[in-house]
Amino acid sequence: MRILGIDPGLRSTGFGIIDIRSDYPYYVNSGTIRTHSLSQSLSERLLEIYLGIEDIVQEHNPQIAVIEQIFVSMNGQSTLKLGQARGACLCALMRTSKMPIFEYSALVIKKSIAGHGHAAKIQVREMVRRLLSLSELPGNDSADALAVALTHAQHIHLQRAISNSL
Amino acid sequence: MRILGIDPGLRSTGFGIIDIRSDYPYYVNSGTIRTHSLSQSLSERLLEIYLGIEDIVQEHNPQIAVIEQIFVSMNGQSTLKLGQARGACLCALMRTSKMPIFEYSALVIKKSIAGHGHAAKIQVREMVRRLLSLSELPGNDSADALAVALTHAQHIHLQRAISNSL
Repeated sequence: MRILGIDPGLRSTGFGIIDIRSDYPYYVNSGTIRTHSLSQSLSERLLEIYLGIEDIVQEHNPQIAVIEQIFVSMNGQSTLKLGQARGACLCALMRTSKMPIFEYSALVIKKSIAGHGHAAKIQVREMVRRLLSLSELPGNDSADALAVALTHAQHIHLQRAISNSL
Repeated sequence: MRILGIDPGLRSTGFGIIDIRSDYPYYVNSGTIRTHSLSQSLSERLLEIYLGIEDIVQEHNPQIAVIEQIFVSMNGQSTLKLGQARGACLCALMRTSKMPIFEYSALVIKKSIAGHGHAAKIQVREMVRRLLSLSELPGNDSADALAVALTHAQHIHLQRAISNSL
């Protein structure tokens, strides 16, 4: 099973793809869709995110998408930007594929990957590196997106374990 | 010249299309893309908005799109919902057509259509009815979207008048 994790953002949207085989996660690909506030209009930036996700789905053909829930900040303008970027990601996923989409909050993701909800970014990166046996620390955006995908893998694993024990 | 006005929203996205011929606006079409919070997931709702805008653009072939700017409210969750809906609209416009996209705030729209920035909804509806010689008052969503399109028509008209007088 192939899982695509997404950490949406207007400036940089991280993506991370993992395969689950015999209950173990394997790294497939990861990276960042970057947009530029100086040279692009808001619409152009949203289209770039949309086309980026479309490309990734078409190239890697994931069966499940997982996207980070947005933390509603006190800054309305930030929430608005993030909301529009997330809308672009979800539209691209829905328009390109019929795969199910799951969501987890940053708190749940950090708890699943690093053991507690307030783990530092570097701890999440290090745990993602270990869980996927990567030789180097992944970049921030890649690590966040891979963590989203890994969180869902853990939840499926847990659900299966619970079902088997009933 | 054909102008598509959009008033984005997660529950209801209004659209209004007008033609400008010899500097006069003519009504072409208007309506609402509705989504349902009980029977649809967020992703399904965003896809419905995306596909709705895509259909409208393909059917009516506007040359310009105009979208209302979002008022950042104190309620972060509302801003987030509205942001995602607006992201869906902008992606659909950008993905379906290469037409330019303009934006106006609610304040500027009300001022352009009803003479002052704090006009009541019913005043905007009545002015839209008069400006487009409609026999009946348009619905709220249609009126708002037609007002967005009419605002841009007025701005073009004004710009042309200024250029001609120089």
